[in-house]
Amino acid sequence: MKKWPITTLILIAIIVILATALIGTLLYLRNQPAPVRGVAPLVTLATQEPDSSQWGLNFPNEYSTYLQTVSNAARTAYGGSEPYSKLEADPRLVALFAGYSFSKDYNEERGHGNSLTDVRATLRINDKTPGTCYSCKSSDNPRLWSELGMAEFDRLPFATLGERISNPIGCANCHEANTMRLVVTNPALENALTAQGKDWRTFTRQEMRTVVCGNCHVEYYFEGDGKLLTFPWDGGSRIDDIAAYYAKEQFADWTHAASGAAMIKMQHPEFEMFTAGSTHFAAGVACADCHMPYTRDGAAKFSTHNVRSPLLNAATACGACHQNVEYATGRVAVIQAQTRATMEAAEDALIAAIEAIHAAAASPAADAGRLEQARSLHREAQLRWDFVAAENSMGFHNPEEALRILAAATDLARQAQIMALQAITAKFAFAP
Amino acid sequence: MKKWPITTLILIAIIVILATALIGTLLYLRNQPAPVRGVAPLVTLATQEPDSSQWGLNFPNEYSTYLQTVSNAARTAYGGSEPYSKLEADPRLVALFAGYSFSKDYNEERGHGNSLTDVRATLRINDKTPGTCYSCKSSDNPRLWSELGMAEFDRLPFATLGERISNPIGCANCHEANTMRLVVTNPALENALTAQGKDWRTFTRQEMRTVVCGNCHVEYYFEGDGKLLTFPWDGGSRIDDIAAYYAKEQFADWTHAASGAAMIKMQHPEFEMFTAGSTHFAAGVACADCHMPYTRDGAAKFSTHNVRSPLLNAATACGACHQNVEYATGRVAVIQAQTRATMEAAEDALIAAIEAIHAAAASPAADAGRLEQARSLHREAQLRWDFVAAENSMGFHNPEEALRILAAATDLARQAQIMALQAITAKFAFAP
Repeated sequence: MKKWPITTLILIAIIVILATALIGTLLYLRNQPAPVRGVAPLVTLATQEPDSSQWGLNFPNEYSTYLQTVSNAARTAYGGSEPYSKLEADPRLVALFAGYSFSKDYNEERGHGNSLTDVRATLRINDKTPGTCYSCKSSDNPRLWSELGMAEFDRLPFATLGERISNPIGCANCHEANTMRLVVTNPALENALTAQGKDWRTFTRQEMRTVVCGNCHVEYYFEGDGKLLTFPWDGGSRIDDIAAYYAKEQFADWTHAASGAAMIKMQHPEFEMFTAGSTHFAAGVACADCHMPYTRDGAAKFSTHNVRSPLLNAATACGACHQNVEYATGRVAVIQAQTRATMEAAEDALIAAIEAIHAAAASPAADAGRLEQARSLHREAQLRWDFVAAENSMGFHNPEEALRILAAATDLARQAQIMALQAITAKFAFAP
Repeated sequence: MKKWPITTLILIAIIVILATALIGTLLYLRNQPAPVRGVAPLVTLATQEPDSSQWGLNFPNEYSTYLQTVSNAARTAYGGSEPYSKLEADPRLVALFAGYSFSKDYNEERGHGNSLTDVRATLRINDKTPGTCYSCKSSDNPRLWSELGMAEFDRLPFATLGERISNPIGCANCHEANTMRLVVTNPALENALTAQGKDWRTFTRQEMRTVVCGNCHVEYYFEGDGKLLTFPWDGGSRIDDIAAYYAKEQFADWTHAASGAAMIKMQHPEFEMFTAGSTHFAAGVACADCHMPYTRDGAAKFSTHNVRSPLLNAATACGACHQNVEYATGRVAVIQAQTRATMEAAEDALIAAIEAIHAAAASPAADAGRLEQARSLHREAQLRWDFVAAENSMGFHNPEEALRILAAATDLARQAQIMALQAITAKFAFAP
């Protein structure tokens, strides 16, 4: 057999080299992320720059999607960004919040860009409202907190502080200027984490994509005469920890007009509900994964800042992980309907409790000790119900936890009703 | 440039052909299933052959794993195949089943291969026990149902029918002999599906891998004097449909010794719970996917017939779909703990209701109408609790549905307690 000619060997070598190079190149390109924006920003921002449009010069995609939060007016089955009245949607809330401002004005939240307009328009604001109410409403806050300190910020009257505030929620609420690092800006969140022995500066970026939402999407209260913004998390951030905290502090937001109970109003404990062992949180999913999913504009890949219900953006929001988006949104619908039905049963039980306590209190025969126990049960029941009701997901952020809490709320409400009945039968020999 | 020599061209052609053939072969092999057993069986079985060891000659892997169900003695957090006493594990059950045989003997189920031993050993069997109690206990049944008809099978005394029964649950309960087709063998399941306008003969194989479990793992009752095995599914198989069915039929399993309520005992409604829109069922998962996962023995791939808790076999059972098995079993633990805590609250509420009704009934002042309403509420509450408590998954087969049902059960139990209190305050002017 004659030797292969050198040309043949060279030819084979060239083919192998070219083919390898081609395949390698294709594989390389396939695994490369989309091109990132230039590292040299167009403008350099002042520290804690409150004007989001300045940040927008460097990050036009993020800014233009953020602007969409102003004009969103979509409604989902149980929420969305249309400012409908929750009191009209469920008139039971008027009775449940009797004696408190939420029984007069309680609207569904709109998008981030409307925060300033909406806080100034609510009927819940009056001459006594402290500056604290601006805590989650403006990108001017990080700078004001630096300048004034949180104690002074909170002590100022709402109207006085308002003269220094002109921007709605924006970039500076979650980002460090220029580095764009995600940061905790709300001193109350910093304090709450510190009290639990946690230092957010050690968190991963993925953890921060949940934690920065905790700047606002939490349960909080105004502590003391200075109305200091405080998260009730010293013992943990589950509902049972929070209830125990408020019991220990003997705090009350208001006295219920019909039952006379010292009540707690829950705000919007999305962070607490989601992080209480939910299936998505346990799987490493962050708030931003669903509410600010990565999206593309041509060659640019960015996290949309049109923060809204993932149901309005399911193909992108759910589709990043769930192959069958229709299945995923179908599950949301089932879970939300189960939560809503269970929530309504809890509301009926609460109203029955309120009526029973009201009736018992009107009776001269009522046992004062049992009446107080009934009021305490009313408080405990309603704060649990409200933890789910005020939380913006109709249970979906943590379905089993939400249903577990509603079951406990209903149980406690019925126990309140029973205790009220026993308060007026206590003095009779036949009483059970 | 000189022409390429013919040897070079031939060489290149050979390389290309060989490489293509090699890659094609590898891809083909990669996508091939494991070798299947020969289509020619070693033995031909009689129709509805009750002796599983005969089937085992043709299907040694399935049979040998089936045999493992006899000796399994593993316990999970809330179940398993160790026959511990449920009454000792939760003494509340003694009060909840007062007046019924389940308050005397109520053990955790063991594996399929023990069904005959265990049904003959239970203290719930007596001289009046009908043959119906063998319905889910033996592979002799399909043949006996063919020979006798279900009405005669059920009418015979347990002891008399027992003389014709010698095999535990086995192959013939779910398979057609020789074709190995999955079949509905229990005439009560056939009737229940027909009543819903469903024909199992049109179902897919994957659907049948859930439906055959419904031969036994369902809620049922003994209808009429003939004790005819009947599934209460005419209006659907959700708990609310089943409760409505029993209300319409005015059926009762027993009268509660303390409350006097006409009660329903739920059996083991795994099929109903799982198919009521659970996340796994909605995703197309069948009972057999988790409880009889595909497994390998050398080159043979088969569905294990060692039917048991997937938690005892999680790497295979959960791992077929869930990349992170530890995450998946962690979720089971969280959900089961939430369900168990909510279930215990429901039990406390039920016992409070029973005690209140008992106390009210002892009072001459009690209003008879309200007392009856209280008993009716006790019945409705307890059958809902029992739908979750008797179901063998501690909520995991359908977490949101289980928690929703437990919330409703607790609510109804407390309402029963309230109605009992009102029964004795009704005649007083101050009564609310």
